[in-house]
Amino acid sequence: MNTDTIDMPATEPARRRERGGRNARRELRSHGPEGHGGPYIVRNIPTYDILSEENLVRIEETADRILAEIGIEFRDDPAALDLWRRAGARIDGVLVRFEPGMLREILKSAPAEFTQHARNPANSVRIGGNNVVFSPAYGSPFVMDLDKGRRYGTIEDFRNFVKLAQASPWLHHSGGTICEPVDVPVNKRHLDMVYSHIKYSDRAFMGSVTAEERAEDSIDMARIVFGRDFVEQNCVILGNVNVNSPLVWDATMTTSLRAYARANQAAVVVPFILGGAMGPVTNAGAIAQSLAETMAGCALTQLERPGAPVIFGNFLSSMSLRSGSPTFGTPEPAIGSMVVGQLARRLKLPLRCSGNFTTSKLPDAQAMNEGTMSMLAAVQCGANFILHAAGFLDGLLSMSYEKFVMDTDFCGALHTYLDGVKIDDNQLALEAFREVGPGNHFFGSQHTLANYETAFWDSEIADNENYEKWEAAGSHDAAVRANRRWKKVLADYVEPPLDPGIDDGLKDFIGRKKAGMQDSWY
Amino acid sequence: MNTDTIDMPATEPARRRERGGRNARRELRSHGPEGHGGPYIVRNIPTYDILSEENLVRIEETADRILAEIGIEFRDDPAALDLWRRAGARIDGVLVRFEPGMLREILKSAPAEFTQHARNPANSVRIGGNNVVFSPAYGSPFVMDLDKGRRYGTIEDFRNFVKLAQASPWLHHSGGTICEPVDVPVNKRHLDMVYSHIKYSDRAFMGSVTAEERAEDSIDMARIVFGRDFVEQNCVILGNVNVNSPLVWDATMTTSLRAYARANQAAVVVPFILGGAMGPVTNAGAIAQSLAETMAGCALTQLERPGAPVIFGNFLSSMSLRSGSPTFGTPEPAIGSMVVGQLARRLKLPLRCSGNFTTSKLPDAQAMNEGTMSMLAAVQCGANFILHAAGFLDGLLSMSYEKFVMDTDFCGALHTYLDGVKIDDNQLALEAFREVGPGNHFFGSQHTLANYETAFWDSEIADNENYEKWEAAGSHDAAVRANRRWKKVLADYVEPPLDPGIDDGLKDFIGRKKAGMQDSWY
Repeated sequence: MNTDTIDMPATEPARRRERGGRNARRELRSHGPEGHGGPYIVRNIPTYDILSEENLVRIEETADRILAEIGIEFRDDPAALDLWRRAGARIDGVLVRFEPGMLREILKSAPAEFTQHARNPANSVRIGGNNVVFSPAYGSPFVMDLDKGRRYGTIEDFRNFVKLAQASPWLHHSGGTICEPVDVPVNKRHLDMVYSHIKYSDRAFMGSVTAEERAEDSIDMARIVFGRDFVEQNCVILGNVNVNSPLVWDATMTTSLRAYARANQAAVVVPFILGGAMGPVTNAGAIAQSLAETMAGCALTQLERPGAPVIFGNFLSSMSLRSGSPTFGTPEPAIGSMVVGQLARRLKLPLRCSGNFTTSKLPDAQAMNEGTMSMLAAVQCGANFILHAAGFLDGLLSMSYEKFVMDTDFCGALHTYLDGVKIDDNQLALEAFREVGPGNHFFGSQHTLANYETAFWDSEIADNENYEKWEAAGSHDAAVRANRRWKKVLADYVEPPLDPGIDDGLKDFIGRKKAGMQDSWY
Repeated sequence: MNTDTIDMPATEPARRRERGGRNARRELRSHGPEGHGGPYIVRNIPTYDILSEENLVRIEETADRILAEIGIEFRDDPAALDLWRRAGARIDGVLVRFEPGMLREILKSAPAEFTQHARNPANSVRIGGNNVVFSPAYGSPFVMDLDKGRRYGTIEDFRNFVKLAQASPWLHHSGGTICEPVDVPVNKRHLDMVYSHIKYSDRAFMGSVTAEERAEDSIDMARIVFGRDFVEQNCVILGNVNVNSPLVWDATMTTSLRAYARANQAAVVVPFILGGAMGPVTNAGAIAQSLAETMAGCALTQLERPGAPVIFGNFLSSMSLRSGSPTFGTPEPAIGSMVVGQLARRLKLPLRCSGNFTTSKLPDAQAMNEGTMSMLAAVQCGANFILHAAGFLDGLLSMSYEKFVMDTDFCGALHTYLDGVKIDDNQLALEAFREVGPGNHFFGSQHTLANYETAFWDSEIADNENYEKWEAAGSHDAAVRANRRWKKVLADYVEPPLDPGIDDGLKDFIGRKKAGMQDSWY
């Protein structure tokens, strides 16, 4: 039986709070950078469904045939193979084949919606259904800003991005490996990263997946924060695991995936498919492959622990025919996302999509053209958890300070967008037309005075002044304004209080773990 | 009776041509800047409908009450008032009120779809239904580029933009007042502008609306090109007329609108509503107002000449609460467009929306964030004729050479986007999975070789190279690449042949007209 909810909604979501009226929204607006919007968005517009039932079934049948006739390899993880064997899959060495319908049956135990708890309960997020959660970009080795250009990320950069995320009212999640802190040994990074999320943010976050023991450490740190019993019953941490596409799951990922599931925590299962390389160059085929790979990964979590929360992920992209390079933010993955959204809803699983994709090396016109197309696709297709919602440049190789605040600003605009067009007597404004009449101005009308404070999204990055004022202020482009903006947000950042007992417990845990390790740099 | 079509489709549209397979699309791709894509797009994805029937009816009822209880002024055009009187409207001075349902009844004679013929028949466009036509921006007094900054537009700039539009395979229409040629006297501009469209482009175009006699001159010039009898039976020119919102039609616009309709040519009827100024600050109210104003204008064309083609237009925007300035490319008009699209389809009228809106003063991240959001809304909401698809900066005050080629490139991406996700055996690629198998690469597969040339959109502006190659090439942003691009496109431009007899006829007409005028500069 598919459980629609495994626990109660944590808090009033953003939209409902805003609906509290003018004062509520004004309060939301007037927050400084240290303030918060709602903990997540409840969408007020339908998803954008582009494919017919008949064509969706054809994709599902193709995925079923890939699973039954070609199969998926599960390498170097005998325990995973054993779970598949007991579930009735056909095993041939490391190759696992699945009868049509078998994975769908297993997936019925996965919740359609669940709450990921934050250490500040007001920031807990509801993942699934009509809910939308924005999370920063993930995994870049480099960082960049206009002052110092591109360089490897450090733990200081990592902390800065956690602080910038925490300070934005338009993100809902602290993310995971916001950038790689390359000044910390590889085998110790996860400890410092998870600690930074807990220390500098009071939002929900993600743990490590780069080795089973690092996944376990991440979950153990969450247990220090939330208590062992609470963690056993509730989701408090996510782990983002990637398929080694095409059709291969490696042990690093399956053992981490199983560690999260075992602890009743949510794995995010993500095939990374660059069409023409790890999948076919045709969109429908790449989507069918993605569906097959995700279903297998999600089902494995249910074999490990039936009922564990899990998120249906995807990451489709294309390549340039001229340069042979990967491309991001192009039209094929954008329109493909709409189909992925339909498929995820037919499986009744929460959906993860990627947000603000681009290959641009600067926070320029290309970056926001590609990023906006990609991010709009994510919200329109019904994604519940949007990773890479802020900061992404250079095909995920760099986190940009300027792009980060541009993107969080756009996330704010999307709060308004997802609220749709509201219909009631006040919104329809017939009285205002009676008051103003033909040829007159609405500026001073009662209706305008009663509504203007909640009326329009107002960007912190866009310059809407006239040309002369803009010129007098220095003729700056958006990147220069974003450069000023992130510095101000960082300077104004206020650390959320953390129970000293928990802080000491975490430091003690990290100290003991590190004492038992030799530094490893690969 | 609503006429679904008033004539036959002119030519094979873009999508169908592309469907001709690999060679057809490669041919499309391999065209140089002097080449063409398809003459227009036939969308292969549904529109994005966000509002319920019940809420759409509430908006329509509000529009009906505005029309019946408040009314619309038709100033200084006794002939228009006379048409309304004979149609049964209630007249009180210049104020006209309409019984609910009256305008809908009149609008039944307007065609749901029509062809606008181009002087090159291969470029004729079908407006309405599932067809999408991209047209350049319209009406800026200034032009700008990275080399010379902002200055007033000249007739040379005007010709340059006509050439850049003609050279793009991704636009379908030559537009109208692409920029104001301020070096030409105001009362003579329309002659030089219409001549430039005919001389330097062989696509469909728009005429003047700034005075009734200028509208007549524009149509007379079209008669020289197409022949008087052909123009009497077929649409060959559009005129974009604006409502003086709220709820006022001025004589300049209604006399021009009636001139186009009288000649069986298409008026594009566009309320310009900046919420809080020319309309209420609430989105639903502004949409209801827009519907009321457009219905009145469209219906007037049908009173002037039943069956004349007409386009349902809209231009909604918001304002900044901080600066009091107009804003463009914001989320409220983007999501509002989806509702406008639903309303236009319920009236069975072709829809015009605006494309690439922004208040940015540079072709930067803000420009493409706002522009992309706005342009995607236009294509998703089902707009058939998208004005301002390329070049728009600074709240329509400037045409930018760099932004123009960025936008035409994005128009190319939207050809792929609107083609959707195709489902057939080749696209589903099951054979490719059989060939490649788990863990292997698709690069050299038969399926990739057979499909890669048609596989992915490849931008001419985006840089997808790796960071090191990009750095070695000069670390340029998209604006610098666009600067190079427009210069190359302009240098490579090839003038389409024009019958010398027609050219002489036009020059003779213009000479005679100008000889009878004193220069006027306002």
